[in-house]
Amino acid sequence: MRIARFSYNDVPQYAFVQKDEGDGKDYLVALDGYPFGSRPVSPSGERYPIDGEGIRLLAPVLPSKVFGLAKNYEAHAQYMHAKGQSDVTHAPAKMMIFTKPSTSVIGPDDPIVMPSFSNDMNFEPEVAVVIGRIAKNVPVERAMDYVLGFTCVNDVTLRDLQGDDPMWTRAKGFDTSCPLGPWIETDLNWRDAKISFSKNGEDVPEASGTTAGLIHSIPEQIAEISTFSTLLPGDVIMTGTPNASGSLEPRDEAVVTIEGIGSLRNVVVQG
Amino acid sequence: MRIARFSYNDVPQYAFVQKDEGDGKDYLVALDGYPFGSRPVSPSGERYPIDGEGIRLLAPVLPSKVFGLAKNYEAHAQYMHAKGQSDVTHAPAKMMIFTKPSTSVIGPDDPIVMPSFSNDMNFEPEVAVVIGRIAKNVPVERAMDYVLGFTCVNDVTLRDLQGDDPMWTRAKGFDTSCPLGPWIETDLNWRDAKISFSKNGEDVPEASGTTAGLIHSIPEQIAEISTFSTLLPGDVIMTGTPNASGSLEPRDEAVVTIEGIGSLRNVVVQG
Repeated sequence: MRIARFSYNDVPQYAFVQKDEGDGKDYLVALDGYPFGSRPVSPSGERYPIDGEGIRLLAPVLPSKVFGLAKNYEAHAQYMHAKGQSDVTHAPAKMMIFTKPSTSVIGPDDPIVMPSFSNDMNFEPEVAVVIGRIAKNVPVERAMDYVLGFTCVNDVTLRDLQGDDPMWTRAKGFDTSCPLGPWIETDLNWRDAKISFSKNGEDVPEASGTTAGLIHSIPEQIAEISTFSTLLPGDVIMTGTPNASGSLEPRDEAVVTIEGIGSLRNVVVQG
Repeated sequence: MRIARFSYNDVPQYAFVQKDEGDGKDYLVALDGYPFGSRPVSPSGERYPIDGEGIRLLAPVLPSKVFGLAKNYEAHAQYMHAKGQSDVTHAPAKMMIFTKPSTSVIGPDDPIVMPSFSNDMNFEPEVAVVIGRIAKNVPVERAMDYVLGFTCVNDVTLRDLQGDDPMWTRAKGFDTSCPLGPWIETDLNWRDAKISFSKNGEDVPEASGTTAGLIHSIPEQIAEISTFSTLLPGDVIMTGTPNASGSLEPRDEAVVTIEGIGSLRNVVVQG
């Protein structure tokens, strides 16, 4: 099932995304209710073509906070070392966890605004986990019960700032650094979800990978984070970028694709 | 003017804190409206003694995010170096900024829950700035126009985790790590506000200081943070701890006092 958030004439609503068997196109089936609550949601009776006039897809969730995992794939850890960005040749044994604030989140087709104080902005395509229930001290075996679904995220990073911004608050937390979307997919093969990235319409094969290569698995991430922080419905975990990163410059089109979810597209503008 | 958030029989409300000229006691004058909005608030007509039955002071604000400044007083930077916690002997020239998530915030008298995975929890008394208007790219000269007021914060830190938790997400972001209160004071002499700390009723003089010793001033902090992140009404900036820190253990009573604001008291419990 796919859950989207959209606006029609600037009024935000939730919807299921459903293919019409007649014309084969995707429609937004608007919902009464809030899909993160304890009560079931039901269609309101209104339906819109996903590319209809006045329709705009929004970030599928408004997280209270976003957690991220750094160096959670061996290939990415080696890439960072080869680039001279990291002293260690291998991914660390302990999960490296950082956060992005809610104000960093943007939706599909929203501009990524490159700050004027950076000259090296990078893309990082990742699977994002969307939490569905309040989670604290959750055991690994039951961690997936707390997940509503999955979406695409681009963990946009100011690589030239990471060095002397040791907590990465500027480098990974700046406004527009967290594009999310296009929707939440509740039924993903999260043990082997294929991640790819394209820039200006061309595939960037060295950025691709699959969640089968995760060092700390998705249930392990949820369990570990919930030992110290309460995860709220709608909170997001960025599970790590699988492989090489690369630069983004003004006018670049960045597309994160996850097989089984879809594609998240954003264009860079100069801030 | 003092703005508090409180609950009466578990219903949260905002209030002005006012001294009754007759009995000399503090009262909560309940407000209609939300003091972070664009419309003026006015008394609802209800008044409660601040220590009345069924009355509980809450964190005076629900921030979407909390920014913190590390090593923003020379005395604290030297203390951290002397303790072997920091390589540098002096405070860094560039602001070191970190964040705490909204789920770390607790109110006056709420327990600080010491996580079972730490053996060295520290107090850090600080002046907290409460933002009143949406702030992005604010110049230093106008930064104070975006401030609603000030409150006390204890930037509780798991010192033994900071080393291998490089973004301090666990060390400074764990649940209950951000006690805030007791209320927001709108009229503080923020250029020279005296900060002190007591543990179990005894003053800890080596932890005290004044905002006159800030390396990066409060307007400079607001201006810098607003270059990369949009500050929302209710967001909080922890301006830095002035001097030595020290340990907190289960059953300790921690009291942060700022002259002109008041005292924030919390007791530690074992998690």
